[in-house]
Amino acid sequence: MSPAGPLPTHHAETSAVARRYAAVRAATEALAQPLSAEDCCVQSMPDASPTKWHLAHTSWFFETFILEAHEPGFRPFDAAFRVLFNSYYQGVGSQHPRPQRGLLTRPSLASVLDYRADVDARMLRLLQQGIPAAELAALLELGLQHEQQHQELILTDIKHLLWCNPLWPAYRSVPAAAESGSAGPSGWQHFEGGLAQIGHAGAGFAFDNELPRHHIYLQPYQLATQLVTNADYLAFMADGGYHDPAHWLADGWDWCRTQQLTHPLYWRQDGQDWSEFTLAGGRPLAPRQPVAHLSYYEADAYARWAGARLPTEGEWESAASVCAAPQGHFADSGVLHPCPAQRAPGQGAGLLQMLGELWEWTQSSYAPYPGFAPAPGAVGEYNGKFMVNQYVLRGGSCATPAGHVRASYRNFFPAAARWQFTGLRLARDER
Amino acid sequence: MSPAGPLPTHHAETSAVARRYAAVRAATEALAQPLSAEDCCVQSMPDASPTKWHLAHTSWFFETFILEAHEPGFRPFDAAFRVLFNSYYQGVGSQHPRPQRGLLTRPSLASVLDYRADVDARMLRLLQQGIPAAELAALLELGLQHEQQHQELILTDIKHLLWCNPLWPAYRSVPAAAESGSAGPSGWQHFEGGLAQIGHAGAGFAFDNELPRHHIYLQPYQLATQLVTNADYLAFMADGGYHDPAHWLADGWDWCRTQQLTHPLYWRQDGQDWSEFTLAGGRPLAPRQPVAHLSYYEADAYARWAGARLPTEGEWESAASVCAAPQGHFADSGVLHPCPAQRAPGQGAGLLQMLGELWEWTQSSYAPYPGFAPAPGAVGEYNGKFMVNQYVLRGGSCATPAGHVRASYRNFFPAAARWQFTGLRLARDER
Amino acid sequence: MSPAGPLPTHHAETSAVARRYAAVRAATEALAQPLSAEDCCVQSMPDASPTKWHLAHTSWFFETFILEAHEPGFRPFDAAFRVLFNSYYQGVGSQHPRPQRGLLTRPSLASVLDYRADVDARMLRLLQQGIPAAELAALLELGLQHEQQHQELILTDIKHLLWCNPLWPAYRSVPAAAESGSAGPSGWQHFEGGLAQIGHAGAGFAFDNELPRHHIYLQPYQLATQLVTNADYLAFMADGGYHDPAHWLADGWDWCRTQQLTHPLYWRQDGQDWSEFTLAGGRPLAPRQPVAHLSYYEADAYARWAGARLPTEGEWESAASVCAAPQGHFADSGVLHPCPAQRAPGQGAGLLQMLGELWEWTQSSYAPYPGFAPAPGAVGEYNGKFMVNQYVLRGGSCATPAGHVRASYRNFFPAAARWQFTGLRLARDER
Amino acid sequence: MSPAGPLPTHHAETSAVARRYAAVRAATEALAQPLSAEDCCVQSMPDASPTKWHLAHTSWFFETFILEAHEPGFRPFDAAFRVLFNSYYQGVGSQHPRPQRGLLTRPSLASVLDYRADVDARMLRLLQQGIPAAELAALLELGLQHEQQHQELILTDIKHLLWCNPLWPAYRSVPAAAESGSAGPSGWQHFEGGLAQIGHAGAGFAFDNELPRHHIYLQPYQLATQLVTNADYLAFMADGGYHDPAHWLADGWDWCRTQQLTHPLYWRQDGQDWSEFTLAGGRPLAPRQPVAHLSYYEADAYARWAGARLPTEGEWESAASVCAAPQGHFADSGVLHPCPAQRAPGQGAGLLQMLGELWEWTQSSYAPYPGFAPAPGAVGEYNGKFMVNQYVLRGGSCATPAGHVRASYRNFFPAAARWQFTGLRLARDER
Repeated sequence: MSPAGPLPTHHAETSAVARRYAAVRAATEALAQPLSAEDCCVQSMPDASPTKWHLAHTSWFFETFILEAHEPGFRPFDAAFRVLFNSYYQGVGSQHPRPQRGLLTRPSLASVLDYRADVDARMLRLLQQGIPAAELAALLELGLQHEQQHQELILTDIKHLLWCNPLWPAYRSVPAAAESGSAGPSGWQHFEGGLAQIGHAGAGFAFDNELPRHHIYLQPYQLATQLVTNADYLAFMADGGYHDPAHWLADGWDWCRTQQLTHPLYWRQDGQDWSEFTLAGGRPLAPRQPVAHLSYYEADAYARWAGARLPTEGEWESAASVCAAPQGHFADSGVLHPCPAQRAPGQGAGLLQMLGELWEWTQSSYAPYPGFAPAPGAVGEYNGKFMVNQYVLRGGSCATPAGHVRASYRNFFPAAARWQFTGLRLARDER
Repeated sequence: MSPAGPLPTHHAETSAVARRYAAVRAATEALAQPLSAEDCCVQSMPDASPTKWHLAHTSWFFETFILEAHEPGFRPFDAAFRVLFNSYYQGVGSQHPRPQRGLLTRPSLASVLDYRADVDARMLRLLQQGIPAAELAALLELGLQHEQQHQELILTDIKHLLWCNPLWPAYRSVPAAAESGSAGPSGWQHFEGGLAQIGHAGAGFAFDNELPRHHIYLQPYQLATQLVTNADYLAFMADGGYHDPAHWLADGWDWCRTQQLTHPLYWRQDGQDWSEFTLAGGRPLAPRQPVAHLSYYEADAYARWAGARLPTEGEWESAASVCAAPQGHFADSGVLHPCPAQRAPGQGAGLLQMLGELWEWTQSSYAPYPGFAPAPGAVGEYNGKFMVNQYVLRGGSCATPAGHVRASYRNFFPAAARWQFTGLRLARDER
Repeated sequence: MSPAGPLPTHHAETSAVARRYAAVRAATEALAQPLSAEDCCVQSMPDASPTKWHLAHTSWFFETFILEAHEPGFRPFDAAFRVLFNSYYQGVGSQHPRPQRGLLTRPSLASVLDYRADVDARMLRLLQQGIPAAELAALLELGLQHEQQHQELILTDIKHLLWCNPLWPAYRSVPAAAESGSAGPSGWQHFEGGLAQIGHAGAGFAFDNELPRHHIYLQPYQLATQLVTNADYLAFMADGGYHDPAHWLADGWDWCRTQQLTHPLYWRQDGQDWSEFTLAGGRPLAPRQPVAHLSYYEADAYARWAGARLPTEGEWESAASVCAAPQGHFADSGVLHPCPAQRAPGQGAGLLQMLGELWEWTQSSYAPYPGFAPAPGAVGEYNGKFMVNQYVLRGGSCATPAGHVRASYRNFFPAAARWQFTGLRLARDER
Repeated sequence: MSPAGPLPTHHAETSAVARRYAAVRAATEALAQPLSAEDCCVQSMPDASPTKWHLAHTSWFFETFILEAHEPGFRPFDAAFRVLFNSYYQGVGSQHPRPQRGLLTRPSLASVLDYRADVDARMLRLLQQGIPAAELAALLELGLQHEQQHQELILTDIKHLLWCNPLWPAYRSVPAAAESGSAGPSGWQHFEGGLAQIGHAGAGFAFDNELPRHHIYLQPYQLATQLVTNADYLAFMADGGYHDPAHWLADGWDWCRTQQLTHPLYWRQDGQDWSEFTLAGGRPLAPRQPVAHLSYYEADAYARWAGARLPTEGEWESAASVCAAPQGHFADSGVLHPCPAQRAPGQGAGLLQMLGELWEWTQSSYAPYPGFAPAPGAVGEYNGKFMVNQYVLRGGSCATPAGHVRASYRNFFPAAARWQFTGLRLARDER
């Protein structure tokens, strides 16, 4: 969490803060709106959480880290929720085990929505008292950014759950659209390298893991101007990509063989035809769309097969810093943000699809930046304790909320994870 | 399924059949009535199924085995349900994997209730045509008995699910009752043994596994007049029962140590006090109640510790054949049958709590009776293919529907199963 | 262990006892003679034990249960061995974990042979003192019978280990022999059933699990006159036996699918030809030999496919009691007993291959006979504590030592076990 | 494998090459000399290999990568060995499964030593033909470096095996020595950071993963002058280090709790006293010795507890480049190299114990250097395909052969690995 960006204390600005709080919270509930109570309750795998849990946990965050410390005469909405909806904060106490989140049929969805309403009323009352000190302001912004992260997770987790159902039901239906996707073949963009700086800069919000901004040294490199497409990936598969160990990291090959994988998650073959599960249900595979839901292992194998490699996060961020705004296409036609991003073509560098399209795997393991210091107290567990056996992804996805995408943002997942909106941009050394 | 007991074909009797059909089906829905859609959807472990699945599968049974063969112009309610709600009938085709039953948030509970209503309307129309041939009559009765089995499973499975919730929510609340349970100490009842007959006799319904009736030879033996109580079991625990391998079967000891067990399922210790989870929520452990939810391993260990043994199913049935009616007490105060059994003291033999109290573990593995022949076709998979690595339980439980308890009934579960309403009656050799 | 058969106390007879002791012990070492120290040390799976462990454990049995109690001034050969070579006797104390027996490169094979020599010298000294009281005599015989059981296990366990080696090395080479096996097609032998007696009778040794002799009641039945052959089994496979769930118990089908099995253990297909691993190395599959190394699941599936069933142990023993002597052929040509059994055709009943050919699966789970009482003290753990989730096998095998085969003998293994010398005789109900 | 350092082709120099070959090969066999055939055969866990396998695989490397390509009229010693002793080279063909290496009681140790002698004779014949072209020379050096890596693995793997034995037998006995270890408290050494270069430089041998040499940018940092000691680590334990999640990475905490760890591998507590298993057997824990056999998780947890962190590999190498020679003490008194290193105090920088003491965990995940290119052909699998989910260790250990330690050397293991000779040097940011 950044020390940058304390909220203002004037009344007019307080009111803007309250409006932002209300808007972010409402966006979360809008995501749950197409879902039944049953949909919101079930957990499809230990890595994914029920929507109801996301709805409750994000409220728990405000109640535990803000109301408990700042609300006069604080009393919890329900004392049991402190344990039930704690994700992993050891500093707050024990947690309901993650793989058992889906067993909580009680409290009901209706009760959790009541919980949200109660927390919102108390938060708005607190905000209207006009006393956001710097620390509170920073915590509030952290809570909202946290809520936005869970907005994306609601979509990734519900997508996995609905895909598990052999009926492939839709999260919501959307009007059929002409295939968009890349307009033409991808090219290579050259970068000089040398001394560069990465990490968050400026006054806006950033998570603690994006700091401090620091120097790195880059060799000359190239990045592909577009993401790898479904058609590209089908060529890899047709060339025996899933059956030749020469393309794979040793761990990846073991993973691929043990699970007997032959295609990306969410793909299905019927005769000669491939279809793909999206939040709008099944659809024929669109060849010009970027390939999505790859693991690090698959992304790396494709890159080796293609004579390329994954970018490092330093290369990516250094290149991305000239891309001003999200741009792109709908990798999942079922994703409709409450406030859909205006995605303009990226400026500079000739790179397309850098922001807000698919999370791009980098070859960088998730590690602290030099001088990294987690925040004091329980919120210090937000990022730092996950810095092992995970790989950094950059750029945001079509499921990332507008305003939550930036070049310095470091997402991270284990190498085998496939249920996020992940994709692949190739890199290569200057020749 | 017994060839005995074809349903009558006269109109008056047809109408009685229809009334019975409607009553059994309604009883199932009454069991689901206290539950939310969320409660009905979640699966707490691979061995347990969601209530919604039970509601659908019992309808699938009628639709697949009766309507599909006998309804003019049969069209399935939903073609996908043939796979989704097939439990294990390979003869019908493939099945949705058992451990993934809880992932089916769609069809919704409301849709499943529509499915039930549709099947019921079609079944009643068929029955009113007055044409139940002998085969159909037998299948109808099998379907109703099958439905009653799932009525008990709804209670056992929902009990497990609610227990997994750290809040220990109640399935339904009941007025507090004075502890009933055994009135005094248990004694021993002597039986002469010799040549005996077991297996279903008479005109009523029986499952195929209760047939044919046949001779066995019994040595003289004794049965305890009452079930082992919670107080008895606490004495075993206080004597180090869970910590001394001398009492345990070798497999049971491994199981006990691997899971680090120290008490029965659904018990919890707070300081010095024990409480027990029931369908009415938590309650202080009632010492005179029969101990419930034991595994075979625990039942056997207790018996060895007590210098006794488990009865064989032949001993049990031979003794039970003089007990005319269910009797007993509420082992789980949350169980309230739509048609609660009148439980009178057992006649003859001095044995109490033989029927409708708790399923009693026997030392008999589940095996075919001599001359056993499964029914032809897919319904032949009902019982026979499970005859390995399971142990027979006798007597029915407080969760067994009235009219579904009889002395020849053979229930069966693996030795480690604890979530059924299982209990323990001691036996010993004549000395 | 039987109370029958105390050893005599006269000097002449003591000397006979000593000779028998020496002969049994020498036979064990002869089995290890073709093996290197490396062969003797490695454990191929948790269910199998290293030869070195068998050599040591059988000595531990004499040292712990006889010398420790009866030897004046007893001092253990090595105090650490009390734990290292205890198999499962909780009454003696803790045990080295079974799956880690193969990690004991120390003590060396040479040290274990020294241990054997030391125990033998002390045992013979004790025996020559002419004081075998009844209890000691019974323990001595139990120790020798125990040693003979481990002689068979040495062969089954080393067979598994050598098979794991892709080179399929031979335990020992034998001259090629013409295929023996069944002379003609198997027939059916009829048995009347009725009241019968099973269990050990007479003055000879028996394990406690063979007692007490007791009445049973049998329905009329039939047994196949010969074991199922490799050719028979190939027909089952050719008919899709491993791919049709209709033939399998539900548990067996899961086991078969999970392990992706398509043929018996120790078989291998090269093109169209099947070969079989034996203790003499690989050899072409001999069609007229009895099929060996089946699990209970496979035996049961074959029987269902063939329209038959497995016999019960009561049926088997009742029929076998008229077969006087082992007879048969070499199911594994690498098995050469130090004292090969004289295997004459069975008298009576027309049944062939009843004794000393292959252990025959029965459908009877391993349970105590009515009135069963384990021996007091730690040796009481010999049999009784394994009476769950195991199935009884009868008849002995080509790897069973001569003199260790009898009609009342109850061997037992879990339903998935395949590495023993197991085979299959069909049974069916009288029609 | 470095393109640097082709071997000379002149006869005098060829003879030096042959002498080096013979010396390295002899050193491997000397390590096996204290072991029995049994010791050499058994595999204690999937991550460790039997000594016999190391002896064979290192010979396989020369036979497959040199003799097969360069020996006139090449014929393999045994065609089966191509599969049996292939470690992971998919380009060479299939491999005997790693977890089953310990099942190979055949070929015997004697046969494997014959294999070694045969390969050595053929290699020396080839070398004496004076034709080592550049490619051959590079492969030869790679083979020798590879052999030296396995020399260390022989020691780490046999240490694990002998530790598994409850008798804690010694690999070899050594005269008792006064405890050495650190002479005084550790201090902090300051480094300025800035632009630096890492990666192998110069004409000597390096593995491909040490190349290319390249620039990095370092922030100012500090390194501890000595390794963390057993006494230091006991203080962490006494402070509840293994029981407080605040010190641990989330993955590390799960690992620690799942395995219920409370102390480093190879430690044992008897009453108040700690002892430690070494290759010379058990010994009382020496407080001033560096703590050894830590996982990454434990090293990281200790560092957090101590208010410090792990160094990056760039920081470590940059600092180490001024340390000229191995120095230090015996972290395992059972390790006696055939040619023990002369370990002088490190020059410059005030850093002690940098080389040849214990492998030091860094926080750097194992990743390719910018511009990394694996060698063509199967040897290209040597390093690159392991670059995921592993962490870099630096500095070599007391078990690393003399001449095999250098500042640019990158060892790598997963975060949970503990059986290597691993230790910990603290780092911290400049304040």
